[in-house]
Amino acid sequence: MKVLVKLVATGLCHSDWHFAKGEAPVRFPMVVGHEGAGIVEKVGPGVSEVQPGDHVVLCYIPACGKCRWCLSGLAAICDRGILIGQGTQLDGTFRLHNQRGEDVAQFALVSAFSEYTVCPVDSVIKIDPDLPLDRACLVGCAVPTGWGAAVNRARVRPGETVAIFGTGGVGMNAVQGAAMAGAEKVIAIDLVDWKLEKAKEFGATHTINPTREDPVQRVLDITHGVGADVVLLTVSLVTADIIGQGVRATRKAGRTVIVGASDRRMDRMNITPYDFMLLAKEIVGTIFGHNVPRVDIPRLLELYRDGKLKLDELVTKRYRLDEINQAFLDLEEGRLLRGVLVFD
Amino acid sequence: MKVLVKLVATGLCHSDWHFAKGEAPVRFPMVVGHEGAGIVEKVGPGVSEVQPGDHVVLCYIPACGKCRWCLSGLAAICDRGILIGQGTQLDGTFRLHNQRGEDVAQFALVSAFSEYTVCPVDSVIKIDPDLPLDRACLVGCAVPTGWGAAVNRARVRPGETVAIFGTGGVGMNAVQGAAMAGAEKVIAIDLVDWKLEKAKEFGATHTINPTREDPVQRVLDITHGVGADVVLLTVSLVTADIIGQGVRATRKAGRTVIVGASDRRMDRMNITPYDFMLLAKEIVGTIFGHNVPRVDIPRLLELYRDGKLKLDELVTKRYRLDEINQAFLDLEEGRLLRGVLVFD
Ligand SMILES: [Zn+2]
Ligand SMILES: [Zn+2]
Ligand SMILES: [Zn+2]
Ligand SMILES: [Zn+2]
Repeated sequence: MKVLVKLVATGLCHSDWHFAKGEAPVRFPMVVGHEGAGIVEKVGPGVSEVQPGDHVVLCYIPACGKCRWCLSGLAAICDRGILIGQGTQLDGTFRLHNQRGEDVAQFALVSAFSEYTVCPVDSVIKIDPDLPLDRACLVGCAVPTGWGAAVNRARVRPGETVAIFGTGGVGMNAVQGAAMAGAEKVIAIDLVDWKLEKAKEFGATHTINPTREDPVQRVLDITHGVGADVVLLTVSLVTADIIGQGVRATRKAGRTVIVGASDRRMDRMNITPYDFMLLAKEIVGTIFGHNVPRVDIPRLLELYRDGKLKLDELVTKRYRLDEINQAFLDLEEGRLLRGVLVFD
Repeated sequence: MKVLVKLVATGLCHSDWHFAKGEAPVRFPMVVGHEGAGIVEKVGPGVSEVQPGDHVVLCYIPACGKCRWCLSGLAAICDRGILIGQGTQLDGTFRLHNQRGEDVAQFALVSAFSEYTVCPVDSVIKIDPDLPLDRACLVGCAVPTGWGAAVNRARVRPGETVAIFGTGGVGMNAVQGAAMAGAEKVIAIDLVDWKLEKAKEFGATHTINPTREDPVQRVLDITHGVGADVVLLTVSLVTADIIGQGVRATRKAGRTVIVGASDRRMDRMNITPYDFMLLAKEIVGTIFGHNVPRVDIPRLLELYRDGKLKLDELVTKRYRLDEINQAFLDLEEGRLLRGVLVFD
């Protein structure tokens, strides 16, 4: 049950870059890209959920709807989620090939850095056709990941204080998720000043640049020594030291949420022996912001349409496919919230 | 606002032993012991909550009832909880002295390895006079810590699978807490076979002795490869490797709860980079099982009176005060669930 999708736009995510650089085990050669939106061109046998002409957002978790996680409201950890790196479709076939006819792996079964892609019908979420696809694509990853980390995983409550380490494409959505959930203080922390300025537009009430001040001490100062109720670690690579900073900036029994990809060397963990037993803190992980793709992708787009969720402001720059290397350079050098590839 | 309590019985807790051995920063000389029960002998000025003759359980958290945590249902992390090691009463005075007249510090403001103690009125919880004090003392630490870790912190739900690493005095109560919360499978893990046999009486459905089998693999086998919904680490010293085992035995998005004292070297953490971001697991700390002393100590004793909570079976052996060194030797060598000092 597959569909052929003509891509219209794809956001560049740091995960694509991690995988492209071989920082996680995948099968090469591979076409990465997973934050895509496009138009269904053809459907295979048995597909009834979508038809040619439908507008869709791609999702990197082809949630099955049948496993214990899907059926417990946890489609984000669907057993198919581990298929991100396998490279083939669900039936084991390759759908991309190079000019020599060799198999080319697909990332997360979708490979959205491509004019066309074949993917499981479970990887596409139908959306209303009036929505701009070059922004709707962002609800395939960055938006739900950051927004949901605050709203679903940390369950930010009105009046709480939330600190966000890293306000790039994902973190900026954690900022707007925390603000939407009614946080009283939303503390944005980033090394790049223009991102901090942007964070204020997304709802940050305080900003900290760690190149100039100690972020832990500043969070403690802002919270009168108590610490933030919630700390979201949305940097692109969550190291042991970042976890240590996050936990120290979190109040007693507060929640430190690991959102970004973890450093491989998780054998280190820079925390104190008292953080768990005496201070009762918690460190929690999340993927796709604990959203349910089929429910929350349309919901996020409704919020966008209602003017309650910012998407337009997330797109820093648009690129053609042949500019992708420049786009990743811009990503790596902190010049983008989101760069978006636009296909003609 | 202090009271003088004549101790009747005090349980031996591994924390006393940690502190006595100097494994945590305290002021020496100190009289340890914190799991005590006794009878109020005298009350100081301003005390109206108890009067001479009242039976009380001592609590190592003199919850203030006024801080943000007490007022949020989190008295277990009351700001006074950090006073465990300071050695003095709340007013800064020492209430124990040696034969040379020198100050002797009190542990957790109570020092229950003593025939008499002076402590804050907030450190005593009045209980019904018909309850046996040589068992009621256990609701001062071991019982709420283990029971509450399962019931309050992990919020075990009916039908879940819970694995408990370490079924000593605390872990055995995690076993009975998990069973009382309706867990379908309660997996007891301990190095000592007789404790595993005991665990079955407390509600364990499966037992694992890691000297004979790999506990992680066995938990995965028992759960058909899924992992336990909840893993409670109730060993007396939670090391990086135990945390690693616990996290590996936990299902996706499951909860690993750190109950025991953490190893000082928490700069190590033997987990994988995928546990948080891809598998969405959580590691959470707790103290006093997230119970509210003034509410839950009487509640636990009601459960005992109703025959729903085992206390009698927790007491392996009784000792006189002059046998305390033998008692700690028995503790260290795994011969006790709880040893209880009984004063005449
Ligand atoms: Zn992504
Ligand atoms: Zn599923
Ligand atoms: Zn204790
Ligand atoms: Zn308090």
